[in-house]
Amino acid sequence: MREPLRVGIAGLGTVGASVARLMARNADGLAMRAGRPMALTAVCARDRGRDRGVDLSRAAWHADPLALARDPNVDCVVELIGGEEGPARALVEAALGAGKHVVTANKALLARHGMALARLAEERGVALAFEASAAGGVPVVKALREALSGNRVARVSGILNGTCNYILTRMEAEGLSFAECLADAQRLGYAEADPTFDVEGFDTAHKLAILTSLAFGVALDPDAIYVEGISKITPLDLRMAAELGYRIKLLGVAERTPTGIEQRVHPTMVPRTSSLAQVMGVTNAVTIDADAVGELSLIGPGAGGDATASAVIADICDVAADVVRPTFGIPADRLAAPERAPMQRHEGGYYIRLSVFDRPGSAAGIATRMAQADISLESIIQHRARTADADPSGRSGAPVPVVLITYATTEAAIREALARIDADGHVAEPPQVIRIERE
Amino acid sequence: MREPLRVGIAGLGTVGASVARLMARNADGLAMRAGRPMALTAVCARDRGRDRGVDLSRAAWHADPLALARDPNVDCVVELIGGEEGPARALVEAALGAGKHVVTANKALLARHGMALARLAEERGVALAFEASAAGGVPVVKALREALSGNRVARVSGILNGTCNYILTRMEAEGLSFAECLADAQRLGYAEADPTFDVEGFDTAHKLAILTSLAFGVALDPDAIYVEGISKITPLDLRMAAELGYRIKLLGVAERTPTGIEQRVHPTMVPRTSSLAQVMGVTNAVTIDADAVGELSLIGPGAGGDATASAVIADICDVAADVVRPTFGIPADRLAAPERAPMQRHEGGYYIRLSVFDRPGSAAGIATRMAQADISLESIIQHRARTADADPSGRSGAPVPVVLITYATTEAAIREALARIDADGHVAEPPQVIRIERE
Repeated sequence: MREPLRVGIAGLGTVGASVARLMARNADGLAMRAGRPMALTAVCARDRGRDRGVDLSRAAWHADPLALARDPNVDCVVELIGGEEGPARALVEAALGAGKHVVTANKALLARHGMALARLAEERGVALAFEASAAGGVPVVKALREALSGNRVARVSGILNGTCNYILTRMEAEGLSFAECLADAQRLGYAEADPTFDVEGFDTAHKLAILTSLAFGVALDPDAIYVEGISKITPLDLRMAAELGYRIKLLGVAERTPTGIEQRVHPTMVPRTSSLAQVMGVTNAVTIDADAVGELSLIGPGAGGDATASAVIADICDVAADVVRPTFGIPADRLAAPERAPMQRHEGGYYIRLSVFDRPGSAAGIATRMAQADISLESIIQHRARTADADPSGRSGAPVPVVLITYATTEAAIREALARIDADGHVAEPPQVIRIERE
Repeated sequence: MREPLRVGIAGLGTVGASVARLMARNADGLAMRAGRPMALTAVCARDRGRDRGVDLSRAAWHADPLALARDPNVDCVVELIGGEEGPARALVEAALGAGKHVVTANKALLARHGMALARLAEERGVALAFEASAAGGVPVVKALREALSGNRVARVSGILNGTCNYILTRMEAEGLSFAECLADAQRLGYAEADPTFDVEGFDTAHKLAILTSLAFGVALDPDAIYVEGISKITPLDLRMAAELGYRIKLLGVAERTPTGIEQRVHPTMVPRTSSLAQVMGVTNAVTIDADAVGELSLIGPGAGGDATASAVIADICDVAADVVRPTFGIPADRLAAPERAPMQRHEGGYYIRLSVFDRPGSAAGIATRMAQADISLESIIQHRARTADADPSGRSGAPVPVVLITYATTEAAIREALARIDADGHVAEPPQVIRIERE
């Protein structure tokens, strides 16, 4: 059998420690699969003393990631430091520059610098592998890059952030507020102390940028992504969704449209009977629509030390087996510049929840503004809260929630109508807008 | 760029023609992915005149599959003839023997002769690739062989036959009989004129044999599979399943048990809220339970020309990129002989529908026999059909359906109890037994 692939891991947190453990435990099996053993020869971490459940005594310890990149006893650098700049970026650039393979779980780094890093890797003829970066343990990178080679992808969409899906699942099941569920998620370790990155959709956007490039053969274009998070979703929206036959999920969606490739991340109403609606808690799910295969869905754990390590090890095993493919499926200099489909041209159904002053003419005024923007309404729902100080007509003058469901229209039309409704003084607070995916 | 990979396709039916079309249409994209063009240089089919929607004028035509295997202008043979013996087997053996790569969708051939063919391929250092053989367009072979390299798989289960799932879906939705739905499936082209292979579970068993080898690193052992089809499922069973919160699916299941690897194919009650229960029509679904990743599910089209061709092309693309892995993940001579867990030791819950003579003592007699076999009953359901000639107690003496749901027990205990109940003369016809998967 051949000489071992010498692996260096930078970052021994939950994922890094799990990679080291799984490599040690499965050493024989991995060697049989790859036709070559793998040896952990170097690590880079701050705390040398901590017990990580695996014998690291034979690995060289580096305090500086760049020393790991330069270590002549390392063929393949596993970057698990995180962050789009700083030591992670410096490490990956140095390792690729030194002709070493790189395996990473770092979606932020890839979304921001993936094109330059892919060019560097391809120049040096080494692998830049990142299965763990898109949907944790779910092998969607391999599916898009290899399994669907013969397909033209029309759409890729999914639940890509376990924190958000956990929060929405609990809000719906227990009628709790966003803040309450976020606090629970933080207590359970599903959300960071600063949750902005997850709950405002940026993590999903990074993952979507990667999937878009793989799916459509285009250069990464994270700045083209429309991003909206879940922090403004209320229990009332979840109740209304249920009443209307929907569930609310934070989706990342990339699709070919007549005007170009549309990339968007936002809370979405999906039919309760759809497969995405069944995805609960921290699970991730990706659905790919492609011309030959039709619809393919992959569902599994999007985070967690062992699940993420599973994807990292698959990449290491590919490297050991000398599988070096173009980073994003086709060579970086052949990736087309994507034509951006502007969000204003997005077409679809909309859920609009307005806080309407309960007085004569409000409903008519709103309906008129929608009609002027050529928006057809599928339904209007108003549960009037009768209060003690209501006048004999039942009207209190206080704001009441009114929910409109539209037929397919455009983002531009919705924005125009809502601006006019606001200017007319019918509503007490900014409208809630949630896009609907009906298929 | 390198010389093209020269591909020969044997069998130009729906799948073969689709492979040729997709190769022609995506030629540039495939070449960029693989780092090498692919050229269709030879075909083997009976009817040369038929229009297959693709220009085949530059391919050599062979009437004899063995001539294709010997064609010096072919590097990679795509076998789409089908059948576990005869021309398909001869072609694959000849091609591998001649040092050519083979891509096949032939599950019967692999289930029966996969070990010998894998040894031959590995001796010659060529690929024997078969993504299309396990779940059509669903890339479960790649997932098990590559994406889960770092995992120990505990269980793989799934809906692997679209014909059966279509029939069960319609029987449940419309209250139709097996025979009625089978006739429709035949009319729509979802079932063969001789449907035995699909509806009696043999097709699922072939696929399961392949998945078992990949999942557990063991030699294929199709003879160890317990196989039961769906032809005896009645509308009454589907109604009872619904009443009890289940749906009936034909599952293939392979799992590690304390006594060895259990492989079984049979109609199964799955909870209506489970992801497998949501899989309708001709769709396939595979769920893998593995220690690092947890639970991973893949759902997509299990058959159809283009979907199957999608998997075939992924394999061709891997071959073009020089990815030659051990056929079943690890080298054939390292695959362990599986310890067979006998079906008698299967543990789980059971649905038992008895046709019980409606007379005093029947219920007590049945309950006693179950208790003697140490079987605990979770529920007993009897909808007594009162008939005109009933005596004043409401009993007619005619057989009435009685459904028993057991807690976890063993196949042996169930068989023993049912044999005694039969011998006691309480039942009018053989019992219906459907296993329950509660997770």
